[in-house]
Amino acid sequence: MPVNLALPVREALLPVAGVDIGTARAAIRKPDRRDVLVLRLAPSAQVAAVLTTNRFCAAPVLVCREHLQSSAGSIRALLVNTGCANAGTGAQGLVNARASCASVATELECAPEQVLPFSTGVILEHLPMQRLLAGVTAACGDLGRSDWLDAAQAIMTTDTQPKAISRQIRVGAVSATVSGISKGAGMIRPNMATMLSFMATDASIAPPLLQRWVRELADASFNRVTVDGDTSTNDSFVLAASGVGGLRIERDTDPGAAELRGALLEVAQWLAQAVVRDGEGATKFISLRIESARNLDEASAVAYAIAHSPLVKTAFFASDPNLGRILAAVGYAGISDLDVNRVDLWLDEVHVATGGGRHPAYREEDGQRVMRQSEIAVRVALGRGQAATTVWTCDLSHDYVSINADYRS
Amino acid sequence: MPVNLALPVREALLPVAGVDIGTARAAIRKPDRRDVLVLRLAPSAQVAAVLTTNRFCAAPVLVCREHLQSSAGSIRALLVNTGCANAGTGAQGLVNARASCASVATELECAPEQVLPFSTGVILEHLPMQRLLAGVTAACGDLGRSDWLDAAQAIMTTDTQPKAISRQIRVGAVSATVSGISKGAGMIRPNMATMLSFMATDASIAPPLLQRWVRELADASFNRVTVDGDTSTNDSFVLAASGVGGLRIERDTDPGAAELRGALLEVAQWLAQAVVRDGEGATKFISLRIESARNLDEASAVAYAIAHSPLVKTAFFASDPNLGRILAAVGYAGISDLDVNRVDLWLDEVHVATGGGRHPAYREEDGQRVMRQSEIAVRVALGRGQAATTVWTCDLSHDYVSINADYRS
Repeated sequence: MPVNLALPVREALLPVAGVDIGTARAAIRKPDRRDVLVLRLAPSAQVAAVLTTNRFCAAPVLVCREHLQSSAGSIRALLVNTGCANAGTGAQGLVNARASCASVATELECAPEQVLPFSTGVILEHLPMQRLLAGVTAACGDLGRSDWLDAAQAIMTTDTQPKAISRQIRVGAVSATVSGISKGAGMIRPNMATMLSFMATDASIAPPLLQRWVRELADASFNRVTVDGDTSTNDSFVLAASGVGGLRIERDTDPGAAELRGALLEVAQWLAQAVVRDGEGATKFISLRIESARNLDEASAVAYAIAHSPLVKTAFFASDPNLGRILAAVGYAGISDLDVNRVDLWLDEVHVATGGGRHPAYREEDGQRVMRQSEIAVRVALGRGQAATTVWTCDLSHDYVSINADYRS
Repeated sequence: MPVNLALPVREALLPVAGVDIGTARAAIRKPDRRDVLVLRLAPSAQVAAVLTTNRFCAAPVLVCREHLQSSAGSIRALLVNTGCANAGTGAQGLVNARASCASVATELECAPEQVLPFSTGVILEHLPMQRLLAGVTAACGDLGRSDWLDAAQAIMTTDTQPKAISRQIRVGAVSATVSGISKGAGMIRPNMATMLSFMATDASIAPPLLQRWVRELADASFNRVTVDGDTSTNDSFVLAASGVGGLRIERDTDPGAAELRGALLEVAQWLAQAVVRDGEGATKFISLRIESARNLDEASAVAYAIAHSPLVKTAFFASDPNLGRILAAVGYAGISDLDVNRVDLWLDEVHVATGGGRHPAYREEDGQRVMRQSEIAVRVALGRGQAATTVWTCDLSHDYVSINADYRS
C-alpha cells in the first residue's frame, strides 16, 4: 500500500501536443501486462536527459548517451521496456539495445540514432528480442492516442500503482501542458534520477535552457529521494519539449518561463515523491530536513546517513520513537569536527534533542504521537552554518524484505 | 539462530591470571539477567583500547578517553553495563559515567580515573543510577572467580548467545593465555570496533607495542565486519595485558611475540566473526573479498557497497542468485573510472561475471547451489591494481526487521 498516493485518474491526465503514446503487451517477463512503451515526438521536439552515474550502467543507457550526442536536437522517439534491465549484458546487450532502436526507426521512418532506448527489470539477463521486437511493432501500431495512464502502467516493475500527473499553465493568450510518468519502488537512491521518469511539455524550450533545466529539476526532485540507497544501473530522467504548443521559451526571463519551470518542478517533485510513497514495502513517508550545515555536502551526508540507516528505518516502521538512532546516524555521517552539543532534533514540531541529549521538555508520548503518523518530518539543525537540504525517504518494513527476497520467483 | 556459531563451553574458556571477573543482576532494563560486569586487573596490567568514531559517542566513551590518558599505565578495572547505552544523555550522562567509576573505585580501593566505564543498550535514556550502583557493589563482591562465560552473558543485548573464546600458546618453558568476549547483533558497522569487545592476556606487553597491536588487531577483525552499516555510539575494543604470566614481550621480534600476536588475532577475528554470525536476524555468513583494486580505499568502498546493499542482502536471505545486484553495487561504489569490462565476480568457485556480463560458462543452477549454503564467499576482482581487502557480513532477513521494530517494546 503506497503512502498517501492517489491512483491517477485517466481524465486528469492531459495529452501533450506533439507527443504520441503507444503501448503493447510483449510478455517480456510476465504475460498479459503492458511492458513496452513508445513515445513518438514531433520533429520540432527537443529532448534532454539525466542518466545514471552507476558504472555498471545498462546497455540502453550507453546507447542513450551516444544517440543524445549524435542526434542532438533531432530525437524522434523513446522506447521503454520493463521486465528486463539489459544491464550486465556485455557486448550482446549493446547489440540488442541498438537492434531495438532500429526496429522503432523502421516503424517510424527515422534513423536508429534518433531513438532513445530505456529498460528496467532484472539485471544480468538478455532481452528476449523476438518478443520485444513484436512488442515494438504492436506499440508503434498503437500510436495516435495520448494516454499517459497506459504509459505509466507500461513501465511498472514492483510498483504497486502507476504514477502519472499533469499540469497546465496559461500565459496571456497561450497555454502549455506538462505531463509526466515515473516508476521506482526498489534500487532507488538516484544519484541523479529515479529508475525511469519521462516528462513532456508542448512548449518550446531552447536546447541550452532545456539542458540546464533538466539537471536543475533532477537535483530538486529525483536526486532528493532514496528508498534503499541502491543507485540503479538504469536510472533515467527525460524531459521532452515538443514545441508544437504556443509557448516559446528561450531564457529564464522570458514571459511564462517562471510559470513553466514552476509547473515542471511541481510535476517532477510529485513524480519523485510518488516513487518514495510507493517505495518497496513503504508504510511511512519521511521528509528529512538538514539545516545550518557548513555546506551542502555535509548536509547531504547527514541526510543520507539517516535515510539509509536500517535501524532508523525499522524504528519508523514500528512507530517507535527510538530517536537515539537518528542521533547515532548524525554522529557517524562523517563530520569529524561535529559539536554534538550544538545539534538539535525535531520530529514535526516536537523538539526531541538539544545540547547533546534529550530536550528537557521532550515527552515520550509526543514522540510516539508523531511516529504513528504516516507522514513524518524530521528536522536536524547542525549549528555550523547556513547550508540546508531536504531528502525524502520511506521506512523499512517486512514487505521490503519479502518483495526483494521473492522478486525473481 | 546464529550462523554456525557454537555455544561457548565453560570448560573451554581459560582464566587469565591477573584478571578477575565479577557479574551481577542489576535489573537495568530487564529483571533477572546478568547486566553488570566488572573486570579487575592486576597492578602490573597494561590496557589499550580502540573507541568509536561516532561523533555522538556515549558519555562512557568520553570518560574512557579521559581516563586512558590521565591514568595511562595504571588502569585497574573495567565496568560494563548492558540495557542502557548512556549515549545522547548530555551533561548528566557524564556525571553518571563518572559516578559509576567512583563507585567501582571505592569498592576496589583505587582512584576513579583508574576505572574505564562501558555501556550498551538503548540510546537517549539515562542510567538508572540506584540500580546500577547496587549492581556495581554486587559485581565487586562477586570478584575472585574468572568465568568468561558469565562475563560474555553480562554484556549481551539482542545477541542470541554469549560470545567467548580462549587460546593458549607455549613459548619454551612459559605459556600465555588469551581470553576474550564480544557482543554485537545490531548497529554494527564498526569504524574501528564492534559495540563491545574485551580481550585479556596474562602476558606482559610493553605499552607502545600494546597500543599498536590493539589498532592492528581491530583493523584485521572488528573493522572488517558489518551487519547494518550503523556505526554505534558505544563501540569499544579493549585489550588488557595483565603481565602476571611468564611471557614478556617488548618488541615484535621478541621470542613468542609472533605466537602471541597470532593467538590474539585468532581470538579477535573469531570474536568479530561471531558478531556477524549472530547478527540481528542473520541466516547467512558472507565473506566478501575484493581484489586487484588500485588502493585499499576503493577496495573497502566496493566491499561496503556490497555489504550494505539491502538488495544484495535480501537476495542472500532468499538464496536467490540475483547476482546483478552485486554488480550494481560495484557500479555505484564511487570508482568513477571503473572499467566494468575488467571486472570479474565469483561466488565460491563459480565464475559468475566477466567482461561486463555473465561468464559464458555460468549456469543459474551453479549460482543457486552456492546461494543455498549458509556460508558464502563472494570474490570481486576489479582489474585495476594490487590492493585487496576482506569484509564479513550477513544477510537481511525478516527477523532483522522484527528485532529492530520491537527492540524497545
